[in-house]
Amino acid sequence: MDYVYGPGKNHLFVPGPVNIPEPVLRAMNRNNEDYRSPAIPAMTKTLLEDVKKIFKTTTGTPFLIPTTGTGAWESALTNTLSPGDRTVSFLIGQFSLLWIDQQQRLNFNVDVVESEWGQGANLDILAEKLAADHSHTIKAICIVHNETATGVTNNLATVRKLLDHYRHPALLLVDGVSSICALDFRMDEWGVDVALTGSQKALSLPTGLGIVCASPKALEASKSAKSVRVFFDWNDYLKFYKLGTFWPYTPSIQLLYGLRAALDLIFEEGLDNVIARHTRMGKATRLAVEAWGLKNCTQKEEWYSDTVTAVLVPPYIDSAEIVKRAWKRYNMSLGLGLNKVAGKVFRIGHLGNLNELQLLGCLAGVEMILKDVGYPVKLGSGVAAACAYLQNNIPMIPSRI
Amino acid sequence: MDYVYGPGKNHLFVPGPVNIPEPVLRAMNRNNEDYRSPAIPAMTKTLLEDVKKIFKTTTGTPFLIPTTGTGAWESALTNTLSPGDRTVSFLIGQFSLLWIDQQQRLNFNVDVVESEWGQGANLDILAEKLAADHSHTIKAICIVHNETATGVTNNLATVRKLLDHYRHPALLLVDGVSSICALDFRMDEWGVDVALTGSQKALSLPTGLGIVCASPKALEASKSAKSVRVFFDWNDYLKFYKLGTFWPYTPSIQLLYGLRAALDLIFEEGLDNVIARHTRMGKATRLAVEAWGLKNCTQKEEWYSDTVTAVLVPPYIDSAEIVKRAWKRYNMSLGLGLNKVAGKVFRIGHLGNLNELQLLGCLAGVEMILKDVGYPVKLGSGVAAACAYLQNNIPMIPSRI
Amino acid sequence: MDYVYGPGKNHLFVPGPVNIPEPVLRAMNRNNEDYRSPAIPAMTKTLLEDVKKIFKTTTGTPFLIPTTGTGAWESALTNTLSPGDRTVSFLIGQFSLLWIDQQQRLNFNVDVVESEWGQGANLDILAEKLAADHSHTIKAICIVHNETATGVTNNLATVRKLLDHYRHPALLLVDGVSSICALDFRMDEWGVDVALTGSQKALSLPTGLGIVCASPKALEASKSAKSVRVFFDWNDYLKFYKLGTFWPYTPSIQLLYGLRAALDLIFEEGLDNVIARHTRMGKATRLAVEAWGLKNCTQKEEWYSDTVTAVLVPPYIDSAEIVKRAWKRYNMSLGLGLNKVAGKVFRIGHLGNLNELQLLGCLAGVEMILKDVGYPVKLGSGVAAACAYLQNNIPMIPSRI
Amino acid sequence: MDYVYGPGKNHLFVPGPVNIPEPVLRAMNRNNEDYRSPAIPAMTKTLLEDVKKIFKTTTGTPFLIPTTGTGAWESALTNTLSPGDRTVSFLIGQFSLLWIDQQQRLNFNVDVVESEWGQGANLDILAEKLAADHSHTIKAICIVHNETATGVTNNLATVRKLLDHYRHPALLLVDGVSSICALDFRMDEWGVDVALTGSQKALSLPTGLGIVCASPKALEASKSAKSVRVFFDWNDYLKFYKLGTFWPYTPSIQLLYGLRAALDLIFEEGLDNVIARHTRMGKATRLAVEAWGLKNCTQKEEWYSDTVTAVLVPPYIDSAEIVKRAWKRYNMSLGLGLNKVAGKVFRIGHLGNLNELQLLGCLAGVEMILKDVGYPVKLGSGVAAACAYLQNNIPMIPSRI
Repeated sequence: MDYVYGPGKNHLFVPGPVNIPEPVLRAMNRNNEDYRSPAIPAMTKTLLEDVKKIFKTTTGTPFLIPTTGTGAWESALTNTLSPGDRTVSFLIGQFSLLWIDQQQRLNFNVDVVESEWGQGANLDILAEKLAADHSHTIKAICIVHNETATGVTNNLATVRKLLDHYRHPALLLVDGVSSICALDFRMDEWGVDVALTGSQKALSLPTGLGIVCASPKALEASKSAKSVRVFFDWNDYLKFYKLGTFWPYTPSIQLLYGLRAALDLIFEEGLDNVIARHTRMGKATRLAVEAWGLKNCTQKEEWYSDTVTAVLVPPYIDSAEIVKRAWKRYNMSLGLGLNKVAGKVFRIGHLGNLNELQLLGCLAGVEMILKDVGYPVKLGSGVAAACAYLQNNIPMIPSRI
Repeated sequence: MDYVYGPGKNHLFVPGPVNIPEPVLRAMNRNNEDYRSPAIPAMTKTLLEDVKKIFKTTTGTPFLIPTTGTGAWESALTNTLSPGDRTVSFLIGQFSLLWIDQQQRLNFNVDVVESEWGQGANLDILAEKLAADHSHTIKAICIVHNETATGVTNNLATVRKLLDHYRHPALLLVDGVSSICALDFRMDEWGVDVALTGSQKALSLPTGLGIVCASPKALEASKSAKSVRVFFDWNDYLKFYKLGTFWPYTPSIQLLYGLRAALDLIFEEGLDNVIARHTRMGKATRLAVEAWGLKNCTQKEEWYSDTVTAVLVPPYIDSAEIVKRAWKRYNMSLGLGLNKVAGKVFRIGHLGNLNELQLLGCLAGVEMILKDVGYPVKLGSGVAAACAYLQNNIPMIPSRI
Repeated sequence: MDYVYGPGKNHLFVPGPVNIPEPVLRAMNRNNEDYRSPAIPAMTKTLLEDVKKIFKTTTGTPFLIPTTGTGAWESALTNTLSPGDRTVSFLIGQFSLLWIDQQQRLNFNVDVVESEWGQGANLDILAEKLAADHSHTIKAICIVHNETATGVTNNLATVRKLLDHYRHPALLLVDGVSSICALDFRMDEWGVDVALTGSQKALSLPTGLGIVCASPKALEASKSAKSVRVFFDWNDYLKFYKLGTFWPYTPSIQLLYGLRAALDLIFEEGLDNVIARHTRMGKATRLAVEAWGLKNCTQKEEWYSDTVTAVLVPPYIDSAEIVKRAWKRYNMSLGLGLNKVAGKVFRIGHLGNLNELQLLGCLAGVEMILKDVGYPVKLGSGVAAACAYLQNNIPMIPSRI
Repeated sequence: MDYVYGPGKNHLFVPGPVNIPEPVLRAMNRNNEDYRSPAIPAMTKTLLEDVKKIFKTTTGTPFLIPTTGTGAWESALTNTLSPGDRTVSFLIGQFSLLWIDQQQRLNFNVDVVESEWGQGANLDILAEKLAADHSHTIKAICIVHNETATGVTNNLATVRKLLDHYRHPALLLVDGVSSICALDFRMDEWGVDVALTGSQKALSLPTGLGIVCASPKALEASKSAKSVRVFFDWNDYLKFYKLGTFWPYTPSIQLLYGLRAALDLIFEEGLDNVIARHTRMGKATRLAVEAWGLKNCTQKEEWYSDTVTAVLVPPYIDSAEIVKRAWKRYNMSLGLGLNKVAGKVFRIGHLGNLNELQLLGCLAGVEMILKDVGYPVKLGSGVAAACAYLQNNIPMIPSRI
């Protein structure tokens, strides 16, 4: 299984799954346990309380579902909507596309607002639709906070403002898979009704937990939502929450302890410091891209993502070749361009438990690969640009001062 | 989180999640990886090929779904059936009850065949129903191979014989959660259409993989099944199987390596030897129960389970107290009695990566607890009975001869 | 390397190396670190302070030496004695024999007091020698607290009384390898000058740390001791203690974190509770041996060891065969009889992080093996005897009440 | 203990202990075992056979001693020499200084040949001494292959040539602590009599194994060497080698499995490829240093070390401040300047399981730190120089082509 062994650490810069910190690996290195003993409910209670902090909510109800982001999507939709319900959904890249596909297959009436890949959600059209929707046929707005395929961050505060402006009661369902715990996310302030992420993203755990948080309004909606659901039914969780045993079916003991450790690390660093670190990583990456003379797939600064950068390559280069060489020669994992941007972009994921020198090693590697594939990059240029910014902005590590 | 620490190893005898062997823990002790690199698909290919062996199928198609047993149930049902379809389903304990509940909530027309808890599925009634169903309104027979709540093993060979006898085309859907990899299970020979298990049971992994195997007939059925499904849709897997990338969404890297290690251990021991070991464990446990003067919840020998034994306690004892003391005084985890048998039975799980001396330690512990709670057990009696049998039957460890 | 794989847990009942608790394994599951960073000295400081507690000393100076028990012996001797110095040393089994061999090869003048194997140190002869030694030619008394080969515990309080009675200034050097952290040990109260243990014994760590503690008198002696030493020289440690960097050469990062975790577990359980647990384990084991109709190698109750029991087998049985079968058939590791008692005894180690049900599994296994090799044991008898005692004496786990 | 936590991976660039690869961490993540079972000797046999390959010897006898490099030195000296024996020993930095100190304290007559720190061993003086030593009073030449404090590699082939030229029978004792498994080392070809390394260096394990290899001539010398030794006595090992049980005292089970994994990784990569990788790392580092306008502590190219680079800083900078900032701001561990070069040099260790992108991250970090402390470095310059070389020289990873 390790026949693909390469010396040294693998440089993991896909936008998920991301690097797991050692304390989390340690926490998960354990035998199974009886999840009906007093220990697991006691720990679960702290997890449910603490996980709300990463959503910045005090009123939400979290669910730790043994699934992936795709399952978390399904949980958000089926618990709040009924077949035939109209959703407004923004197609801006591969992951929003997949979510829309899911919405359609779940028999919702999806009103797709498409943008060019590399642009954010078209909120002008949303405004129009809300303005026109006097009878409130729109039941939910479905939006990805950060489109992982193109490195585009949408402005959720504006979405909320529009909803408020038009006094529209539609639910706001947000895919925060590649944003929560890395980008500024404010569930309560922005009136998000369902927010969700996956454990393998900014939380820096293995895949296996779909973390979904529901507002009181979403919980209320779930009482009348007619979508068929069993595995993903919040109601089963709520029953066990009341009983104090918490789990309608068997959780992963290892992921619970892992989540405990991951949250502890995040709180120790400080959530705002974690977000500031991601801001630095994003900025440094974009400065490098610029220094290389390459374009960001993201078309405007307002949409720049601090968790993933999709880099456009010149037409004479196949971006898949860059990803292949990264792995074959440099023991580095970069993200492929997907679907419409296949061959045209490669992606640098810079989210999760990562620091600046790791990123600089990656950027140096990308420079060499660009040279490998015939792009006339000036070696060192991207690193120089990133360093110039970082050297002024990296804070001291608080616990070491 | 370890505030519940007790000295020595926890004696884990719940019927899942079960003990994880050290080589599997080691295999999972790793960072995340890019699941789109060539390494993960290459490994996945071997997993899909090898996992078929534990189902004893050559024609089945396996799915490794990031979910639990509950999700695996949903996968089996929604991919093969349409709302309103008639299923015949056997209610013999808590887990068959939950599956039936799921079937009802998924809008199937469930024809429930109930038995007293402690009895197996009533196959005489099945025969009647099949005989009467000339128009083939029964679309699926849903049966748990081993009811974990009562320690009852159903006879699947007979179910197949009945279906064949009446030339009935109903699908045979089998919950093998607490049987596969521990009890004799023959998917192809018994004409099982969907079989499923969970990683935390006899495979001795953490929770997180629902392992589902579909016969060609089940795959065919999935083409016309109208149940709404996205996360659990086999079709998404099949598309990625064809592409050779295998994963419609992010798998747990750790569980894939863990499954690889778990299968390697099972094949090294030999699947038939693994099953024979479970036969010994079941027999030894029942001999101890008999020596204690207690009754097995399972009412007839033909239904005795070799993976879990539910022990009836006298009416003046609360079985929950036994489970509580096991944990509080002896660092042992036993299974509670559930629902109808709550307070009346405690359960000893003896499945997964476990050996005889571990079981004997458990049995000695149970004897002390029985004494603790006022049952006049003769200390040592159960261990003596189990040892008398085991000493004649344990084979030498092949790799050590 | 795992070609010797057997299903389930290995039942490790050799008197060292012993079972490592999961929290300690987790603590050691980590990359290397720079031992000159501020972190390692800060942790080392807590270790040196806390390790004194397991010796029950406030005045001693501990050394954590990257070596084994054999090296710890050498450290104790060469730092306190000069070639030609007279030591009184007790030969009562294989490990005291090896220590005496070391003393002789280090050119001390060893006055050997031999006892039959199975007996404790002959303290009457010690009294005679002290009484006769008006000119104080005896520079050190060397004694093992617990002889691991025969399961004999010597009475150190009496040794101290004799030294005090005769106002003899000889140093008291104690091998506490299989006693410290398991048996009652009181460095200050008993006036022990050098006490030592190894990490792989009752501390339940991997092999690799020789833990040596020196009284002020021993430190004083080290200033004039002329034995050649460099690697084992306390003086190098003391220099680095003063500097606050602590390490004259590279320590094992993993063992330091492991020791931290091991001490935390011991303090959480309470050192006195740890010792009481060992008392129970020793007593239970001896009751089983008695029930089997076998003899303890230890000839008198006053010498019974609570960390290891050496069991005499009838002359028609080769005890090595018992150890072999334990491993080949039951995945259990027992201790061989060594040297003079080879073939005559097998040993059950019951020290370290172990609980009663683990021991009962072992005892059940030993019963089956005895039967295997033709000894007419009554199966269950030993377990019954042990349970009768344990059921009355095991306390509730404090953290779980 | 993790109060010094910083986000992301620690960038470990001290010249030992070095980064442990994940497969090795996994191999060591295990419970203790009985080292007298058949499994451990069987594995030990393969280790002793395979470890000879990293020394490039077929005639040597290896010893895996539970100690550090300091203990390995002591083992080399005390097994081959007698008190009063004359050694010629080269003082070129802190570690050769410490070895010489040990030689003196072990009562050898040490003929010290001192060079300025930053220069290699003065072999001209060796030639003179050999030429003059008609009566063969020189019993051993003691030389470090690679002085870790100054990054100086000595030419062992020349030492052998001189010994041969003068037909001098002196033993050749080599400290290969920071060379073996990383630099070209040829025990048999160069007629090295004792070579030694430590597990935490290029083998990329935790500290805890002193690995010593003795030529037939050294073994012969050990028969008459009169230095007092017990723990380090080869003879005890040789006795147990003959018995086939291999261990005179308890080894670390974890380090044995770790060594097995480490050797497997090295052989999979190919020892010559491992060495070539170190050559690249050394060259790349020196190019960066040059680009920064700084000087290598090593004064001539012939002595350049491919495992550690000591960088001289301008007089107005305290190199200790660089090391401190590396840790406090960038989560990077660099080596301090020691003794004579304290404050004047900082050291970049580039040995062990490490790849080029890791090094480039380090170099980028060093550039920022240089700027932090007021050195007018051009950011990106060192990385650019290193990349220009590496991009032309890094091979594809063989297992991934």
